[in-house]
Amino acid sequence: MDHSLTGEEPWRVRARAIVDGMPVLKLVGARLDAVEKGRAVMSLPFDARLTQQMGYQHAGITTLLADTCGGVAASTLMPDGADVLAVEFKINLMAPARAERFVAEAAVLRGGRTLSVVEIDVFGETGARRKHVARMQQTCITVPGETG
Amino acid sequence: MDHSLTGEEPWRVRARAIVDGMPVLKLVGARLDAVEKGRAVMSLPFDARLTQQMGYQHAGITTLLADTCGGVAASTLMPDGADVLAVEFKINLMAPARAERFVAEAAVLRGGRTLSVVEIDVFGETGARRKHVARMQQTCITVPGETG
Amino acid sequence: MDHSLTGEEPWRVRARAIVDGMPVLKLVGARLDAVEKGRAVMSLPFDARLTQQMGYQHAGITTLLADTCGGVAASTLMPDGADVLAVEFKINLMAPARAERFVAEAAVLRGGRTLSVVEIDVFGETGARRKHVARMQQTCITVPGETG
Amino acid sequence: MDHSLTGEEPWRVRARAIVDGMPVLKLVGARLDAVEKGRAVMSLPFDARLTQQMGYQHAGITTLLADTCGGVAASTLMPDGADVLAVEFKINLMAPARAERFVAEAAVLRGGRTLSVVEIDVFGETGARRKHVARMQQTCITVPGETG
Repeated sequence: MDHSLTGEEPWRVRARAIVDGMPVLKLVGARLDAVEKGRAVMSLPFDARLTQQMGYQHAGITTLLADTCGGVAASTLMPDGADVLAVEFKINLMAPARAERFVAEAAVLRGGRTLSVVEIDVFGETGARRKHVARMQQTCITVPGETG
Repeated sequence: MDHSLTGEEPWRVRARAIVDGMPVLKLVGARLDAVEKGRAVMSLPFDARLTQQMGYQHAGITTLLADTCGGVAASTLMPDGADVLAVEFKINLMAPARAERFVAEAAVLRGGRTLSVVEIDVFGETGARRKHVARMQQTCITVPGETG
Repeated sequence: MDHSLTGEEPWRVRARAIVDGMPVLKLVGARLDAVEKGRAVMSLPFDARLTQQMGYQHAGITTLLADTCGGVAASTLMPDGADVLAVEFKINLMAPARAERFVAEAAVLRGGRTLSVVEIDVFGETGARRKHVARMQQTCITVPGETG
Repeated sequence: MDHSLTGEEPWRVRARAIVDGMPVLKLVGARLDAVEKGRAVMSLPFDARLTQQMGYQHAGITTLLADTCGGVAASTLMPDGADVLAVEFKINLMAPARAERFVAEAAVLRGGRTLSVVEIDVFGETGARRKHVARMQQTCITVPGETG
């Protein structure tokens, strides 16, 4: 049981609700490993169904993991009842995405009332080796809640 | 039968081979609709398995479609035997991705020996309506072939 | 006399006021050539003071021209009294910036109440030749006015 | 005297030569404060000539400082005789650029034979206060030297 995911704080509940509410994460096998104020970690095991023509994980899947992880991190600093959407992002694919599992680590650089800026790193892990696969820089917007 | 995909030119054969060689495209249901020198069109029907917490298509899937379409367009201007990899891209998600199908249209802005720059638009189509959902700006690199 | 800059519409007056209000544009020699709803054109003659170590115009100056032109284009679709700020942008430098003059052309892709997305092309012009030097994709935010 | 800038290593000599070779840096008043393998620090005092319509330093100038600093950092990992060019970059402008001086700090994330990826932070400093003004993610290319 992951203690970091069992707290009662509203932002933790929301972070898990966002992840649990995304059918695409079930399809690709991604999960939330940890979430703190302004930070999130997600992971995804290698899966041959998710590859491109050279046998690497498709850049779109690496992006999906990073983008989701960034949005979850941004959400932890937003007011209760709000939701989060990515407005835009940029990603550099720095090494071929070939590994046993992929881990995304997100940290909020600027949490704003309207806009947040998040950096997300993606690592490929094979046994004890860890390779820096991608870096994303993302802008998210706070979507105000219906009521308080 | 799509005549634009049945020619004998090596760059058409390669474009189809790239798309056919990507398992992830089968998983998400994306296909290549057309390819010309410096241009490509791909599409993806809406699928509830690919959505995020608000019921829209996940930004990562929109990105996967745009990124693939851009790489295919870039490949058409590369020398025979070469392969294509995206180095980086940036995408603006301009409207919620809720539509019956999504169409990506890629056009090469600069085809270089080493680096190519591609712009990709993604539209959401519902019946006769078309909405501009996303714009990507992408850099690809030519991966030289084993032999000539 | 440039007729496109002499109209009375508030968005034209504001576009000129933004440009006239930027001391840095005088320093580098940039000017607004035309502005329409959702569009702007600016230019900058080559100046050896603005170059980098290879004698090309520095990428930061190409960016300054493109960024300003994009903000001006975005401003034309904003409510009266508002001001415009760039939130982020991405630029591909596609060819060496060596030419007699540089022309930026901006077009709004999405004009929103809060966020706008703009594409900006920069061309190098030498005599009758025109070269595509850079492409920018920019996000601007509407800064609400003090009063109406 | 800045000891970090007086060493004899070829990459230090080249870093200084790049900066000294850029006329635009003299125009805006930017200087190289430190350079190490994979890292560089540059600074620029506030100057009213470099401002936009709200009195802040223009985003193009913040970008010019960050872009140059990133290129210098990337150059330190390149082979002797090579030169560096930025291929593309993306910058988030996270706070108004109003401060006594601006400091850019660059760190190479991936130094490659052909392409390098660099992150650059820009801080505004006023007295003892330091504010995170901007984050850039940049791709540079190695331009091979004429001879060895």
